[in-house]
Amino acid sequence: MTETAVPSPSAPDPGTLGIICGGGAFPLVVAEAALKAGRKVFLLPIYGFAEASSVERYPHEWIHIGAFGRLSAALRRNGCRQVVFVGTVLRPSITRLRVDWGSLKLIPRVLGMFRGGDDHLLTSVGRIFEEHGFELVGAHEIAPDILVPPGVLGGRLPSSEDIDAAHFGQEVVRALGPFDIGQGVVVGGRRVLAVEAAEGTDLMLERCRDLRANGRIKFRSKAGVLVKAPKPGQDRRLDLPSIGPRTIELAAEAGLAGVAVEAGGVIAANIEDIVRIADEKGLFIIGLDR
Amino acid sequence: MTETAVPSPSAPDPGTLGIICGGGAFPLVVAEAALKAGRKVFLLPIYGFAEASSVERYPHEWIHIGAFGRLSAALRRNGCRQVVFVGTVLRPSITRLRVDWGSLKLIPRVLGMFRGGDDHLLTSVGRIFEEHGFELVGAHEIAPDILVPPGVLGGRLPSSEDIDAAHFGQEVVRALGPFDIGQGVVVGGRRVLAVEAAEGTDLMLERCRDLRANGRIKFRSKAGVLVKAPKPGQDRRLDLPSIGPRTIELAAEAGLAGVAVEAGGVIAANIEDIVRIADEKGLFIIGLDR
Repeated sequence: MTETAVPSPSAPDPGTLGIICGGGAFPLVVAEAALKAGRKVFLLPIYGFAEASSVERYPHEWIHIGAFGRLSAALRRNGCRQVVFVGTVLRPSITRLRVDWGSLKLIPRVLGMFRGGDDHLLTSVGRIFEEHGFELVGAHEIAPDILVPPGVLGGRLPSSEDIDAAHFGQEVVRALGPFDIGQGVVVGGRRVLAVEAAEGTDLMLERCRDLRANGRIKFRSKAGVLVKAPKPGQDRRLDLPSIGPRTIELAAEAGLAGVAVEAGGVIAANIEDIVRIADEKGLFIIGLDR
Repeated sequence: MTETAVPSPSAPDPGTLGIICGGGAFPLVVAEAALKAGRKVFLLPIYGFAEASSVERYPHEWIHIGAFGRLSAALRRNGCRQVVFVGTVLRPSITRLRVDWGSLKLIPRVLGMFRGGDDHLLTSVGRIFEEHGFELVGAHEIAPDILVPPGVLGGRLPSSEDIDAAHFGQEVVRALGPFDIGQGVVVGGRRVLAVEAAEGTDLMLERCRDLRANGRIKFRSKAGVLVKAPKPGQDRRLDLPSIGPRTIELAAEAGLAGVAVEAGGVIAANIEDIVRIADEKGLFIIGLDR
């Protein structure tokens, strides 16, 4: 079933959009996009992750992570058949999950979910929602503008060596796909300098900065490319990789020449801001073809 | 041509063994093994890497990294046809190479060598030696005792989950082989927590320790396995991954349950010491089948 901007008369009313909100600017962007498209929204900010300032202007109900019973009741009560997950949620600790009666019978599955990578965890969470009658949609389906577009996005042009490094980085992310590892690498020439796993993109970039400062990575000024791309086979409704202003700032601190992301496969809450910072810092930023 | 412990009368005399020495305990172990086998040795410690205390008891001549002309002259002068590289040499900076007349004409190749990963760099260096009439042998061919043996090596037994994690880690190293990335990963359950690239094993373990301390990696006490294995297709004469006492200490600090290395594919200068430390810290240590 394909969805179009104007629903055909026979399409069922999608109803209020339930937005489960983690941290960062994305929940706001998605809520605004849905409202602009004429949808009603109901936000479910997660304690400890969502920011009150971004969510409290909308109808909302705070939830504890893991409290699936309360969450699904709140979704039903507010007429939400379609649900979107958006924003940062660091992998929770099993012991900190606030398990309620609704999630109790899910415990054996939850324990299994925690054994794999992030993608495995998210896919399992997604499946549970679907089994309970909710339809999961991707944040980028509600707010297509968050997808980073293809091409050279800023004022700085990458060298042919940078483009070669970016494609090499894409291949590395692809090879790591089956292992559900992070979606970022830093490549200099054809040398992989860093691979992202549990630490996340920001800490990987800080590591590159430190390795450079202490001489373990030796390059002339401004070399190396941060490459981000979704894992092949990843459920794009749940966890597209993202970039933000901090990504560019840390890439600059690491002395990189630029940032390359898979166009249409990486999200940014405000790409104009990001491009402006890249221009200021003298870094290129490009959207790569898949 | 296979070599046996007792050369057959028709085999050419291998002559004095030239040992190009980086840092750490391996040069000493290799020199002693060669002497014990009745070979003469001549050491070529590299300034800035080799430790005077381990090399100066043997006939030797200090060399600058990159000074290939002086190095090959010293090897010939001392009757070294066979050469072994051993010990730690951090990837040198191009600008710090002390280039002499003998290496000047190699410069275009050297620049190309620096564009790839470590393995690419070492293979290229190895090829240059061979083109100049030297035979490269692996440190483990001279000192087979440095190869970590298969099986459970210490007093602590891995759980079946740990063994599963170790095999999963081996698969990750294998998948990364074509990209010439580091030879270590940390795996918890079936989740890849960290992948080693330019930072090396020690810094990867420090990262796991820090991620655990700040709650980004959440596990019950003692979980996760460090896995080290050679890259598939790697020239084993030049750069087998190694473990040392510090590896075990850092794995313990990172809260890991144990260490798994590919048997016959990872070297240790003194495996008894390493096993003793693992036992003291309560970590298992195992040699995996390939």
